[in-house]
Amino acid sequence: MNFVTYEISGQRQLGAILPDGQNAVSLQMLGVDQEYKDMVDFITNVSEVELLMAERAWHQEHEAAIPLDRVTLLAPITRPIHDIICVGINYRSHQEEARDMFQAATSKKDEQHIYFGKRANRITGHGEAIVCPSCDEEMDYEAELAVIIGKECRDIKPEEAEEYIFGYSVFNDVSARAIQRKHVQWLRGKSLDGYSVMGPSIVHKSQIAFPPQLDISCHVNGELRQQSNTRMLIADISTIISELSQGMTLEPGDIIATGTPSGVGMGFTPPKYIKAGDEVVCTIEGVGTLRNVVK
Amino acid sequence: MNFVTYEISGQRQLGAILPDGQNAVSLQMLGVDQEYKDMVDFITNVSEVELLMAERAWHQEHEAAIPLDRVTLLAPITRPIHDIICVGINYRSHQEEARDMFQAATSKKDEQHIYFGKRANRITGHGEAIVCPSCDEEMDYEAELAVIIGKECRDIKPEEAEEYIFGYSVFNDVSARAIQRKHVQWLRGKSLDGYSVMGPSIVHKSQIAFPPQLDISCHVNGELRQQSNTRMLIADISTIISELSQGMTLEPGDIIATGTPSGVGMGFTPPKYIKAGDEVVCTIEGVGTLRNVVK
Repeated sequence: MNFVTYEISGQRQLGAILPDGQNAVSLQMLGVDQEYKDMVDFITNVSEVELLMAERAWHQEHEAAIPLDRVTLLAPITRPIHDIICVGINYRSHQEEARDMFQAATSKKDEQHIYFGKRANRITGHGEAIVCPSCDEEMDYEAELAVIIGKECRDIKPEEAEEYIFGYSVFNDVSARAIQRKHVQWLRGKSLDGYSVMGPSIVHKSQIAFPPQLDISCHVNGELRQQSNTRMLIADISTIISELSQGMTLEPGDIIATGTPSGVGMGFTPPKYIKAGDEVVCTIEGVGTLRNVVK
Repeated sequence: MNFVTYEISGQRQLGAILPDGQNAVSLQMLGVDQEYKDMVDFITNVSEVELLMAERAWHQEHEAAIPLDRVTLLAPITRPIHDIICVGINYRSHQEEARDMFQAATSKKDEQHIYFGKRANRITGHGEAIVCPSCDEEMDYEAELAVIIGKECRDIKPEEAEEYIFGYSVFNDVSARAIQRKHVQWLRGKSLDGYSVMGPSIVHKSQIAFPPQLDISCHVNGELRQQSNTRMLIADISTIISELSQGMTLEPGDIIATGTPSGVGMGFTPPKYIKAGDEVVCTIEGVGTLRNVVK
């Protein structure tokens, strides 16, 4: 099953998109009695039994189902507990296309996985506008598989990593390329307001065979720009979680964006950056479709 | 005046260190009636009037003063709302000594200020041990002036920056050099558990002439290692806050570490890294002395 955060009649609720893909239902209607203050609270404190019961209810018919067009979907996690941890240059095809712009990062060895922080005061959800500020003249898209941590972990082995995952989401790591390049370290070019885009839901790990081998794509204005499969990751998910956990505690609700394949705007000659009016659609097999328009 | 977070009889309190430097007093005893849940809540919601009244009370004698050795000081902000924003290579002297290890960062132009994120689940306070995990074989220190943001701001000019500052603290940007180098981007090498060290207090901006021109030093086991003045910053505080705010909203409680002068362990031949048992003392004129032992 999956989990969403949505607003209806001005009230924020946690819920799920039903298997028909057309309707949402609140967690309460799925038998989750406890009140969770937000998605991170839910991920942190939900019990295995509650999850199983909710999943059973999710498969049944629901009189209280709400058509998706009657709710406003927000990002499943609206405000992250820490900056999002991103893995840079984690598909070989993207390593090639980024070579001219990011020499130090693309000439790394295979065991040098790149981790950088992406700050978000508020994560942009499915269907919301991504607002391009005037300081960004090279706005780019990056379709990525996001992993959501479910349990606190530190110093774990790669073979233990799956146990600490809560689920997966579709992530668009929107990037201001000129700013990213200017400051050498990438924080600022990655962290403009609204540049973390995630949704529509968090798909629970029980729905996805591990390790995830999922087709991933990105279309801009209907044109296919990125197309790959998450089996092509240089550092796989087990390696990423294990390595990050060495000496650093990961917490429930932490978001790790696992990197983007080739086909981003900066990879074209001339570059195909995005601008106001453009529609970006990121899709991951079994995880969802994240659609946003640039404003 | 200044603000601290401390524990007494198992209770966490907000307070201040009195002008004698020997005693602490709770905010309540300074006439702050409202209950703030933590320092970030206080910074966000305290009114100018409350601040002025507290400062007046702070100058008076206090029967309810508690000797500092009877409280356990914590970091003034124990858990940051976002990853700490650090400015890299922001003293020319440090640029020289870091040249061999970080070529891309040290060959930047003067207008290319380096910003990177430093994650902290919990900030280490004055007097607490800094625990070195087994994965770090090159543990280093960096004395820095931290700026604490007081009011939400975006797209502000350098000359407006001071208005959005709440105060200052002493920051030790503990760094795992081998890990920092390995991953090209610095997040992981900067973010091991406990490697953000700040305190003892946040000194309110009313105590410090702007821009701060303060002596800054670091001693390891009594040996002077770093010595400079914050007037030597390449990007000054107004520039940093203004630049970061372009397209990215800074929030009350945000911590910006403004960079370290020369004299860090990696700058020596052979390097003088720190290890279990070493004492690190960072001092900034008028802001405080932050003392920690490595464990």
